Amino acid sequence: MSEAQTTDYSSTEYLDNVDKYWRAADYLSVGQLYLKDNPLLRRELKASDVKVHPIGHWGTISGQNFIYAHLNRVINKYNLDMLYIEGPGHGGQVMVSNAYLDGSYTEAYSKITEDTEGMKRLFKQFSFPGGVASHADPKTPGSIHEGGELGYSLVHGAGAILDNPDLITATVIGDGESETGPLATSWHVNKFINPITDGTVLPILNLNGFKISNPTVLSRMSHEELKDYFTGLGWDPHFVEGTDPKKMHPLMAKELDAVIEEIKAIRKNAKDNNDESRPTWPMIVFRAPKGWGGPKAWDGEQIEGSFRAHQIPIPVDQNHMEHADKLVAWLKSYKPDELFDENGTIKPEIKALAPKGDKRMAKNPNTNGGALTKELILPDVKDYALDNTEHGAKMNQDMIILGDYIRDVIKLNADNHNFRGFGPDETLSNRLNAVFEDTRRQWLEPIKDGSDALLAPEGRIIDSMLSEHMDEGLLEAYTLTGRHGFFASYESFLRVVDSMLTQHFKWLRNAHEEADWRADVPALNIIASSTAFQQDHNGYSHQDPGVITHLAEKKTKYIREYLPADANSLVAVFDKSLKAKQVINLIVASKHPRPQWFTATEARELVEKGLGIVDWASTDQGAEPDVVFAAAGSEPTLESLAAISILHEQLPDLKIRFVNVVDLLKLKADDPRGLSDDEFDMYFTKDKPVIFAYHGYDDLVKDIFFDRHNHNLHVHGYREEGDITTPFDMRVRNELDRFHLVKEAILDTPAFTEKGAHTIQQMDAILQKHHDFIREEGTDIPEVEEWEWKPLK
Amino acid sequence: MSEAQTTDYSSTEYLDNVDKYWRAADYLSVGQLYLKDNPLLRRELKASDVKVHPIGHWGTISGQNFIYAHLNRVINKYNLDMLYIEGPGHGGQVMVSNAYLDGSYTEAYSKITEDTEGMKRLFKQFSFPGGVASHADPKTPGSIHEGGELGYSLVHGAGAILDNPDLITATVIGDGESETGPLATSWHVNKFINPITDGTVLPILNLNGFKISNPTVLSRMSHEELKDYFTGLGWDPHFVEGTDPKKMHPLMAKELDAVIEEIKAIRKNAKDNNDESRPTWPMIVFRAPKGWGGPKAWDGEQIEGSFRAHQIPIPVDQNHMEHADKLVAWLKSYKPDELFDENGTIKPEIKALAPKGDKRMAKNPNTNGGALTKELILPDVKDYALDNTEHGAKMNQDMIILGDYIRDVIKLNADNHNFRGFGPDETLSNRLNAVFEDTRRQWLEPIKDGSDALLAPEGRIIDSMLSEHMDEGLLEAYTLTGRHGFFASYESFLRVVDSMLTQHFKWLRNAHEEADWRADVPALNIIASSTAFQQDHNGYSHQDPGVITHLAEKKTKYIREYLPADANSLVAVFDKSLKAKQVINLIVASKHPRPQWFTATEARELVEKGLGIVDWASTDQGAEPDVVFAAAGSEPTLESLAAISILHEQLPDLKIRFVNVVDLLKLKADDPRGLSDDEFDMYFTKDKPVIFAYHGYDDLVKDIFFDRHNHNLHVHGYREEGDITTPFDMRVRNELDRFHLVKEAILDTPAFTEKGAHTIQQMDAILQKHHDFIREEGTDIPEVEEWEWKPLK
Repeated sequence: MSEAQTTDYSSTEYLDNVDKYWRAADYLSVGQLYLKDNPLLRRELKASDVKVHPIGHWGTISGQNFIYAHLNRVINKYNLDMLYIEGPGHGGQVMVSNAYLDGSYTEAYSKITEDTEGMKRLFKQFSFPGGVASHADPKTPGSIHEGGELGYSLVHGAGAILDNPDLITATVIGDGESETGPLATSWHVNKFINPITDGTVLPILNLNGFKISNPTVLSRMSHEELKDYFTGLGWDPHFVEGTDPKKMHPLMAKELDAVIEEIKAIRKNAKDNNDESRPTWPMIVFRAPKGWGGPKAWDGEQIEGSFRAHQIPIPVDQNHMEHADKLVAWLKSYKPDELFDENGTIKPEIKALAPKGDKRMAKNPNTNGGALTKELILPDVKDYALDNTEHGAKMNQDMIILGDYIRDVIKLNADNHNFRGFGPDETLSNRLNAVFEDTRRQWLEPIKDGSDALLAPEGRIIDSMLSEHMDEGLLEAYTLTGRHGFFASYESFLRVVDSMLTQHFKWLRNAHEEADWRADVPALNIIASSTAFQQDHNGYSHQDPGVITHLAEKKTKYIREYLPADANSLVAVFDKSLKAKQVINLIVASKHPRPQWFTATEARELVEKGLGIVDWASTDQGAEPDVVFAAAGSEPTLESLAAISILHEQLPDLKIRFVNVVDLLKLKADDPRGLSDDEFDMYFTKDKPVIFAYHGYDDLVKDIFFDRHNHNLHVHGYREEGDITTPFDMRVRNELDRFHLVKEAILDTPAFTEKGAHTIQQMDAILQKHHDFIREEGTDIPEVEEWEWKPLK
Repeated sequence: MSEAQTTDYSSTEYLDNVDKYWRAADYLSVGQLYLKDNPLLRRELKASDVKVHPIGHWGTISGQNFIYAHLNRVINKYNLDMLYIEGPGHGGQVMVSNAYLDGSYTEAYSKITEDTEGMKRLFKQFSFPGGVASHADPKTPGSIHEGGELGYSLVHGAGAILDNPDLITATVIGDGESETGPLATSWHVNKFINPITDGTVLPILNLNGFKISNPTVLSRMSHEELKDYFTGLGWDPHFVEGTDPKKMHPLMAKELDAVIEEIKAIRKNAKDNNDESRPTWPMIVFRAPKGWGGPKAWDGEQIEGSFRAHQIPIPVDQNHMEHADKLVAWLKSYKPDELFDENGTIKPEIKALAPKGDKRMAKNPNTNGGALTKELILPDVKDYALDNTEHGAKMNQDMIILGDYIRDVIKLNADNHNFRGFGPDETLSNRLNAVFEDTRRQWLEPIKDGSDALLAPEGRIIDSMLSEHMDEGLLEAYTLTGRHGFFASYESFLRVVDSMLTQHFKWLRNAHEEADWRADVPALNIIASSTAFQQDHNGYSHQDPGVITHLAEKKTKYIREYLPADANSLVAVFDKSLKAKQVINLIVASKHPRPQWFTATEARELVEKGLGIVDWASTDQGAEPDVVFAAAGSEPTLESLAAISILHEQLPDLKIRFVNVVDLLKLKADDPRGLSDDEFDMYFTKDKPVIFAYHGYDDLVKDIFFDRHNHNLHVHGYREEGDITTPFDMRVRNELDRFHLVKEAILDTPAFTEKGAHTIQQMDAILQKHHDFIREEGTDIPEVEEWEWKPLK
């Protein structure tokens, strides 16, 4: 704060420089839209200076540049640790321009120099093939939030400050974005932020009034409604509203000072008095015109302060230069020669306003979180191993065992504050009960004795809000800022965040492939429990395993899909997942009591290789089998093994191979980790019937096999047959049960079809009995247990 | 209102009967959880009377039954047209019990008689294999909202009352549900309801305080915050809070009366004064304990008023009868013998409280909307036909032509008020501009001259809110109540509502297959425009065509996926879609200027058959071709035809067949409308190379072909290669462009591979030139146009 004593941050002189800084950012932002040469207009504008396709958005820019400049001011004044989240769509120039002004862009990309040539390159690359996106994409220094899909700025801002007590995320939220469901519920995130151990998310609602072609809902609410809305949501809204920069600068400075001082007071009180009650955090409602300071009108229609300012407001491009003079006038209105010297470098007295070093928002270390990552201290997987030397003899609940493991991860890393779990009120339902031996659910609202359980103002689990959007968003930002965690959900309701998963995948990919200065970040670990085959009591609406296909359609270099069949496999998978970087790990996990199959050694090998031939469940003894059983998932493995038992008893000559698949995408020919064709054939043969018992929809397995030699494939997956019924009946309805699998194997193995005719009749009779019995009694026929897996003789 | 004059609805006597009605509903609800026989406990409870697996939820039930009974009271008092939306999860007994009490359940299911035997059946079937779900599933009379996935109750309530001015949807919203993103933004729906032409959605927040194992966020906000929150959102909250039924009955009666009178006053004012400004609609905050009136405690832990009341509060089942006395005591606390006569029939003085006939919420005609559907008056598709006798000679924008057609649908059906379009501020971006010639966007907030356009308090388009959840939810309810419409979205952001589409599909399926009294409802029409290949200016984040696979994984009997290649095809597809019932139509539509291919007759035939061999683009003249080109989608068709032109010019002997696919799922072997294998082979041959140019991810096409004879398939779809770039470069990056297709055809056709070597070299050279040029100039090389489709000689 030493500088604070010598600088008057509220002086007219200082604010005049802030205005220049803002104008410089606006100039750069408009230049990026239109120009590919002659960036400072120091000669006459020619057609070849202008892009063929100016692409990008103007409407959101100037307001955000204004905010950014003032955030720089308070960073300087109060020596803050702050990063910037850009919520509004397509405002990519904001973070690019400001990173360029403070020098961090050039530090990341040495070719984009701080002179005319560098500015020319900066302009050209924007919204350009092979260049940078019109959002704050991973190539943008300081960004952890691309924002191409709207709705997640506030949860990203909040996820970043968890366990970062000194950090403030200045989170600009577009008023369009604020209409999305995810954003609308994100305001409640203040109920989950601890004022001592976490940092501060500072929402700045950018109320410019318009979307693509409509006004925004929040901008047309009355002032009273808006105030009530945010007050009701537990925030203290500060309004900064106006159109005249001369009035707006001192107003913004005053309110931002007040906000920062409020934050400091809250934190001081919390710390000094160990007061962990929920504070009323401040926020800013910033209302300035859309397209502020740009063209006022065009063709007799209002531009500034209207939806018409949204994208490119003046129709000028390389092939349409008729109105080039208007573009030049617009650009010159920022007086670039006052801002940049003869070399095209920002003048030192203006650049001086940028914070220094890592205090620059574009260089905030948390925005390159991989570089900050402390590896987790992990317990030894062996300590959780079940003794399965007698394969399938004992029952256990995979998720309960995983809970033990996670409890200890929490314990071992307690001092590092770098591991968290998220969920929509499902941690207990998903059977991770053990985690609460050593931690609580973080919850800053009142806690009541008697009616409540396991809540505290600080805890490693955040699961007290029923919003998959919030869980996913918090975890995304927590990992992007270099920490570790997981999100455990009902499988079907992961589909609620399908598109969030897509956007995170796209971020991981682009960050890895196009921003070499970014360090890889910890994996996004998604546990899909309470699956389609374990939703017996919730019924048909809770059954959808399609997230597997959804993610498999993406570039699988950045995706892992694990379907461990028992607890030993699950713990090994989770252990591997916690060490992984720059991927999304989807883990489909069983929570029901199920037989346990693999020894710890077998499980480790299965997880390392991704799949394996299980000798104790195979009768081919290394020779070419008559039929291959493959299984991916808990129930598929259970049923396949039972089917193998039945077949071996009834047709002892049939040579069966059993392949257990844990890491599904290893089967994909186009996955960089995928098996070669030769390897694939070694497991599945070139042409023998493969009975593939599978947890998800059939199509993905068919797609995988399509690219392989062996097309003699018979998938038994989830066939969209659901009801409120027993777990076993769910398998029968989808023909994933042992009886259907036995029939399939016999029918697909011509040499045994005749011999197996009697078995088929027997299976049909059992299935008929099942059909009648379940609808009458609501329970399973005794044959289900009678025909359980038995060790092969 | 004649009855109102003779009945004192606020008398102690009347409210005592309301209390009995409530107790009867509670009794039936608990019975459904536990019992399968001895429903009125008129003999001692035996183990065999109790279910083996009691499944379902108690926590939400009693509060909702209380609300339902009081809604019946105001229906009677004010002669209301009202239906019930059950938002809270797993409260299925509420609507079942109340429908049984008022006789409508028996009217729908004659075996569930109004006596002991019927009650026994009612109890047994609940949450039972082959029975009814634990939600308000389609089998439930009066339901249009299953609610298994939470978040959509309020938009469903709102969608139902659009254009139903006399209807009130009493929409009970769980406080758990209120934490979801979709619900949190749904409160803004009041900005889109016209007080004259639409009806009234009455939100009733069921603030029972707890979710599965956590308190709820809204229940722990202070009274002031809650009031501010809803006031800020534009509602007038009426609080009904308490635990003592004796006090709650008169309070609820008083507040509900006030609410209904407020609604009537709003509507009267709007009508009398033609006042279309947004009113402040009333809502109710209903706070009563979770598990109200049930077991107070168990094992020393609080049940009533705690999360522990969520599911089955007392552990009693057929094999665990130790505490059966507690269950009996609980059931008898409702004094069933005061409520049901010796036959097990509800006593007449209690039943008298139910509204009569269609006034019963379970019989509200809008909840079986298919029976109310007025077919649309459709214009003649021929009137929009482009003259494409010279195939590909003219350019046009498919969505602009569709806009003309939709404009006229709106015009023709104006008097029926039964057609609407929804979108997230994208109607213009998606180029449906023409619709605004005859209507406006419905918007009840202030409208400003100059800055705004195309807004009005009444209009057929609702697109002024950036929420796919709201669009999808409003359209779902609008169609479930028998009306017609569409939702047009950016393709990639349909993924935001993936799970809503799943839930709607599940509803359509179960309604059709398991509730024969339900009439089929108009289709849910989803237009995916601004697709992966037309998101050049928005970049990689806006590119995801995976919704096609997502829906194709479901039972495709209820799904249609159309990929029309030009305007004539698109209009024919949309026309067909508007006539369809009980399906989701996904229509992938181009908005860019594109060559137009098919005559109106050809287009109609393509849409009717789903696909066709295009003779003017084929050179096989009916014989077995050397290679088959297939295309599904706008760019795939465009590129395939260009490739065919090139190939024909360079290798005139090559016999090419071109198949255009519009109705993708016709290719699926397991689709009930799917081609037979013989038919499939007639189009695609048994073994000739098929170059399939496809709009979406490759895997779905491989899955389709896996089940067919011909595995000589080469799919060129979206391969997750995106950038901000030209539309043509998007195709090159994904190898869907003409040059890659030509190479693929030559390499896959061995007899022509040598002859085609030169062409391959030429294609490679062009692609290299493209690669360099696009990154430098940002525009396409001239060869793209030079190698455009030309009529075959």
